[in-house]
Amino acid sequence: MYQLDSDLKLRERASTAFPAGVYGHQASASVSPKHPQFFSRAEGGRLWDTEGNEYIDFMCGYGTNLLGYRHPRVDEAAAAQQAVIDCATGPSPLMLELAETFNNQVAHADWTMFAKNGTDATTICVMTARAQTGRNTIVVAEGAYHGAAPWCTPGPSGVAPADRANQLTYHYNDVDSLRTAVELAGADLAAIIVSPFKHDVFVDQEWPTDDFARAARQLCDDKDAALILDDVRCAFRFSLGSTWETIGVLPDLCAMSKSVANGYSLAVITGNDRFREGASQIYTTGSFWFASVSFAASLATIAAIEEEGALEVMKNSGDRLRRGLDERASAHGFTLRQSGPSQMPLVLFEDDDLWQKNNFFVAEAAQRGVYLHPWHNMFICAAHTQEVIDEALQRTEGAFAALKKQFG
Amino acid sequence: MYQLDSDLKLRERASTAFPAGVYGHQASASVSPKHPQFFSRAEGGRLWDTEGNEYIDFMCGYGTNLLGYRHPRVDEAAAAQQAVIDCATGPSPLMLELAETFNNQVAHADWTMFAKNGTDATTICVMTARAQTGRNTIVVAEGAYHGAAPWCTPGPSGVAPADRANQLTYHYNDVDSLRTAVELAGADLAAIIVSPFKHDVFVDQEWPTDDFARAARQLCDDKDAALILDDVRCAFRFSLGSTWETIGVLPDLCAMSKSVANGYSLAVITGNDRFREGASQIYTTGSFWFASVSFAASLATIAAIEEEGALEVMKNSGDRLRRGLDERASAHGFTLRQSGPSQMPLVLFEDDDLWQKNNFFVAEAAQRGVYLHPWHNMFICAAHTQEVIDEALQRTEGAFAALKKQFG
Repeated sequence: MYQLDSDLKLRERASTAFPAGVYGHQASASVSPKHPQFFSRAEGGRLWDTEGNEYIDFMCGYGTNLLGYRHPRVDEAAAAQQAVIDCATGPSPLMLELAETFNNQVAHADWTMFAKNGTDATTICVMTARAQTGRNTIVVAEGAYHGAAPWCTPGPSGVAPADRANQLTYHYNDVDSLRTAVELAGADLAAIIVSPFKHDVFVDQEWPTDDFARAARQLCDDKDAALILDDVRCAFRFSLGSTWETIGVLPDLCAMSKSVANGYSLAVITGNDRFREGASQIYTTGSFWFASVSFAASLATIAAIEEEGALEVMKNSGDRLRRGLDERASAHGFTLRQSGPSQMPLVLFEDDDLWQKNNFFVAEAAQRGVYLHPWHNMFICAAHTQEVIDEALQRTEGAFAALKKQFG
Repeated sequence: MYQLDSDLKLRERASTAFPAGVYGHQASASVSPKHPQFFSRAEGGRLWDTEGNEYIDFMCGYGTNLLGYRHPRVDEAAAAQQAVIDCATGPSPLMLELAETFNNQVAHADWTMFAKNGTDATTICVMTARAQTGRNTIVVAEGAYHGAAPWCTPGPSGVAPADRANQLTYHYNDVDSLRTAVELAGADLAAIIVSPFKHDVFVDQEWPTDDFARAARQLCDDKDAALILDDVRCAFRFSLGSTWETIGVLPDLCAMSKSVANGYSLAVITGNDRFREGASQIYTTGSFWFASVSFAASLATIAAIEEEGALEVMKNSGDRLRRGLDERASAHGFTLRQSGPSQMPLVLFEDDDLWQKNNFFVAEAAQRGVYLHPWHNMFICAAHTQEVIDEALQRTEGAFAALKKQFG
């Protein structure tokens, strides 16, 4: 069983060095008391904490790690670019090369922009839709995460009521609720925002129904509004295009980030010609948005995904983890509720409304070298080979046994 | 005279690959037709365009370059960190080490947060002020730049009226206008936002008067509101603390970015204990905010600034450039209006209301290997030694001669 002595000391210091410890989505306090907060080393699909304990990591940087941490080809391309030019008074031609790569590989894309945060990308999509249509209302799924700016952050603190003006909500996969929201928006509808699939925290994930996706597209066509796909979390995990290409529905604007440069900071906005004028009118920029190392890393990531067949590896490994967890849970007398695509699994326990079993289980798994999350979707990376999945499953045996002892 | 053939071809491609060419503050179209858009190499205080032309660069990545491009010590620290862990499921202890460094070296700082864009940092300051005070109104200087999110971007496109709700304006260094805005805000005042000095585009820069800075501090104390210093552009150019420490006035919250990691993407928010609770309540985060390479680069930047005496080098070199430009302008029959601190110079021509002389001059200077900006403050870096300044001045001779021929 892992000890976390040095991590606990660091957390104590962090509680005053930061406002109240590490903030945001990487606050370990929101995962379990047995999950370390700080890590000293990363490689492939594994992490090492400051005590030297090793974890098979199924959060993958909350989605930024797709090919494996410290992927040699990506890191070499980044280092080669760093040795020449990164953030300067203008971009290197790599920015253009990468934009043209996205315009070629993303079906709806006639133009591309780059930024640094997923929130930058979703915000730029909303601004572009408003600039192009001259309207303000956006229609957003209840409970969906689209970033952490005042207009979209899930927390109410520090948000003024005006920050949420011009927003109406619908329920994911509920066509009637979407139609109602669009009717309420009336002549002011600027955009409908959709996630590629429902990947909200705490609740079962849902792949979009055909009816829902086609209704969203049709409503935007009818109202001359923008269909915005928030592909920040999913881009490159199902396709090198936008994720809704896999179901045959093209957005007008798409926000991508997370894994598009395998951990180097980059966000991508793609759009079609209908929204080119709007995108060219908005003023948006950032101090580091034109830095080339992330562009080099993204180009290398795209090449590696194709050459390594990373999408298939992640699908197969995700399926193997899903089956293996089901079998082991069942052998110990538990039933799991696994939802969403297996590459981005959410694993819940049946009869566990307060996530008590899950919180206990993931804490026990962490103590045995498997980093799982109790209520946020997880991520498989291409370094999670079948052997690594089997090793992780083996390590969960003790966690299931402990769970049985506690709840069986 | 430099040729830009390959740059023009790249710009042609960029006009369709992006919505309308390179966007944001690095769009060369907004500087002059003779300034290249793309660069292939950076080193020290110099850039090379795609044709191989070399420039002494006085924009320094619009402020991200402080020690010189590709500073060996910073890049080595970053590479060493990249070889171990960067963006993962949790931060490395370097995040804590850097936060404690800021808490030690910034006078008002009891806690620190990190993000990726200057806009992230100013937005977090505003959210923190609102969360802490339970009020919404912020008081902002007319024409000041605080980022490119809907609440602050200088362009109107894509901005809904509600995005600018709860804002009142004052004029920089005009105490009466500040008092009037604060009175109008009444019981709803959450914060006053100030720039360390007035560094708006197109107009003369102004260092804050003592009266103005002290009034801003006093008004915030009287109203229990936050004094927010937007130090994004200036941090580390005058002090390793917040820039208003040089005039003896401490803010409650401070946003820094640009040069704090010498070109690696990083934004920093520092705050005092009065605002700790507000900062801990807001939900803000980003996919790459916990990545360690930028933290390693920032620690190395801080050490190098101290050991190289970078602040003094920049001041002396800025003074030398200012004197040299004045002398050369005068010798050719022109009078310059140079304003602001010499490390961040704004150089305008007298009798040049439409910036025609300046546009012509900077284009001619670019053609001779000196990258200047006609209406945005420039930046001196520590690699701009006296020898480099003298070389740049020598190169401007032909530009002044051409200017005399055109306007003399």
